[in-house]
Amino acid sequence: MATRPLISDHDASPEVLAIFDDIRKTRGTDYINNFWRGLAHDPVELKSVWNDLKRIMGPGSLDPLTKEMIYIAVSVANSCEYCAHSHTAAATAKGMTPEQHNELLATIAMAAKTNHLATALQIPVDELFKV
Amino acid sequence: MATRPLISDHDASPEVLAIFDDIRKTRGTDYINNFWRGLAHDPVELKSVWNDLKRIMGPGSLDPLTKEMIYIAVSVANSCEYCAHSHTAAATAKGMTPEQHNELLATIAMAAKTNHLATALQIPVDELFKV
Amino acid sequence: MATRPLISDHDASPEVLAIFDDIRKTRGTDYINNFWRGLAHDPVELKSVWNDLKRIMGPGSLDPLTKEMIYIAVSVANSCEYCAHSHTAAATAKGMTPEQHNELLATIAMAAKTNHLATALQIPVDELFKV
Amino acid sequence: MATRPLISDHDASPEVLAIFDDIRKTRGTDYINNFWRGLAHDPVELKSVWNDLKRIMGPGSLDPLTKEMIYIAVSVANSCEYCAHSHTAAATAKGMTPEQHNELLATIAMAAKTNHLATALQIPVDELFKV
Amino acid sequence: MATRPLISDHDASPEVLAIFDDIRKTRGTDYINNFWRGLAHDPVELKSVWNDLKRIMGPGSLDPLTKEMIYIAVSVANSCEYCAHSHTAAATAKGMTPEQHNELLATIAMAAKTNHLATALQIPVDELFKV
Amino acid sequence: MATRPLISDHDASPEVLAIFDDIRKTRGTDYINNFWRGLAHDPVELKSVWNDLKRIMGPGSLDPLTKEMIYIAVSVANSCEYCAHSHTAAATAKGMTPEQHNELLATIAMAAKTNHLATALQIPVDELFKV
Repeated sequence: MATRPLISDHDASPEVLAIFDDIRKTRGTDYINNFWRGLAHDPVELKSVWNDLKRIMGPGSLDPLTKEMIYIAVSVANSCEYCAHSHTAAATAKGMTPEQHNELLATIAMAAKTNHLATALQIPVDELFKV
Repeated sequence: MATRPLISDHDASPEVLAIFDDIRKTRGTDYINNFWRGLAHDPVELKSVWNDLKRIMGPGSLDPLTKEMIYIAVSVANSCEYCAHSHTAAATAKGMTPEQHNELLATIAMAAKTNHLATALQIPVDELFKV
Repeated sequence: MATRPLISDHDASPEVLAIFDDIRKTRGTDYINNFWRGLAHDPVELKSVWNDLKRIMGPGSLDPLTKEMIYIAVSVANSCEYCAHSHTAAATAKGMTPEQHNELLATIAMAAKTNHLATALQIPVDELFKV
Repeated sequence: MATRPLISDHDASPEVLAIFDDIRKTRGTDYINNFWRGLAHDPVELKSVWNDLKRIMGPGSLDPLTKEMIYIAVSVANSCEYCAHSHTAAATAKGMTPEQHNELLATIAMAAKTNHLATALQIPVDELFKV
Repeated sequence: MATRPLISDHDASPEVLAIFDDIRKTRGTDYINNFWRGLAHDPVELKSVWNDLKRIMGPGSLDPLTKEMIYIAVSVANSCEYCAHSHTAAATAKGMTPEQHNELLATIAMAAKTNHLATALQIPVDELFKV
Repeated sequence: MATRPLISDHDASPEVLAIFDDIRKTRGTDYINNFWRGLAHDPVELKSVWNDLKRIMGPGSLDPLTKEMIYIAVSVANSCEYCAHSHTAAATAKGMTPEQHNELLATIAMAAKTNHLATALQIPVDELFKV
């Protein structure tokens, strides 16, 4: 249960519906996931987040699947339940293989382990690493 | 300044030196970075972390640079200063271009933003995302 | 399901009941929320947390609604599901408008984004910001 | 030392200089803080972050000082050293009194304490808190 | 619902079953908890995590219950719902008394409070604390 | 450099000096560490934090060293630089051996690794673990 109601198409303002339409067209599906329906109480923020997401997660010097896996990594480290689910689903839809999923998880877990060791030891940054 | 002294080659046990040697050979450099010198107080853990890292971060179904960027993502979300520095240096050494670095940072920042929104709103996970 | 049973009024010691009574009087409701019932296994800690909360969250140089929104901000960044729910409900009860809620969420999300960018870039603190 | 060089005015592209100019005009100071100089390697992201920040942190249904304190709260919970410094300086510049600073810190600390208790106990969300 | 299916004994490879057998023997129970069934998609990682866990959480210079409580502390600070549940159950099985549980929670909460205060204030590390 | 000045004995109010005296007597040292000097801008909070700390970290059903190690674990997971330093120093002063330090770090690192795996996989809590 969300901390405020999800906005259905029926309750959406024309401004919100226009963004929902763009999400539908861009993704080639009629389904609008709950995140956008929760955010729709604030049409300005909804538009800003959607436009940033479309720009950043599209093709560039990194391929979309790589970015989706980076997104999962951040979401896991930030303990975001919704995000772990939604971006694992998105990565799978973009062709993540079981082997790639395994390696993603092993890398996240390895990083978490050494993050905590480096912080516990307060290891000073090597001069070599400084630009 | 670390919470315990970094172990120099001079102070290292034969067991630790053997791992330092493997790090040197694997990475093709004589330089051992501070993290390993801090961890060297516990040779069993040093060996376990190094062996896992070598296995996980090597080539597989994901290329080493992709995994290095995932590592950065986790390190940033976990606020690990040392890790942000060391893995940005490692990714650069593995060929990360400025454009890729830009996209990595934009993806991390985008994920952080939506992680916090999804958590604040406690968005329920869409049935569609459940396996 | 909690990691230990919630304490009902029936099972509460006189010491716990006295604190429950103070919560009821202070808040003007008979309802004791689950957090206090979970904490009631440790009457000393229950009393300390309740007294601190009453002192800190009451009127002062910041109004109670402002403090409730600050509380939500910390709870979201700490990924606390219970706290996101309970303090959003509390802020709403204290008069948070939908517009204020929107601005609160946008501010939290903006901060999360720049937090991750500043950490990824390891930006040095400007001399100007040091006291 | 940042993970990549800070961009001076001398090295900035016209696109970046235009944003620096807007920051200068909006804030009424010639000083550009390090965060923007680190972000300037990616002019598109620099522009997006600055425009969002200007929109979100300006006057609205919450006053700018309240939003600055919410920003500090998130930054502390995310352990962002740079952000704790820069936004405490910003809040002070916007008139935060020592008494308000004290209450802000006490509220952040109280929230952190109860966040960890609620998570440790896995307290189930009260039906009452669900919308 | 997990982000990928849990592996039943029926679907497990011989390699996975061998590790499940070792978990059963080591723990003296036929029950394999969900964590291992989720991890079993990657037999190499499953084996590595289980072997590390067996080595680290067994008797040493710290007793197993102390280590279980340290495990809970990290899990709570990392907001890991599954881990809070599973390691509280494990600590209880290893003899954690209600009084010890109370002290564990009070210590975690105290640490969280002062962590946030120290970060908000950016307290410089005392020379005395440096090795 | 802190976000506000540390209070010297010379600048401290009688109320603050009384607490400093109690810290000195309780700890058997004339040295007041920076954390207390930063917190001293708010004498009410200073007194509350110190009294809670004295009560919680003293002898009980858990020994003081065990609690100090739990404190380190939370501080590391919360990425608190000051706290990692000060509580490692405190644990060492209370007799933590190098072997115990090694096991503490290995446990923290193990927990961080499995925390991230459990969150990435969104493992459902076993019925067995629910009270």
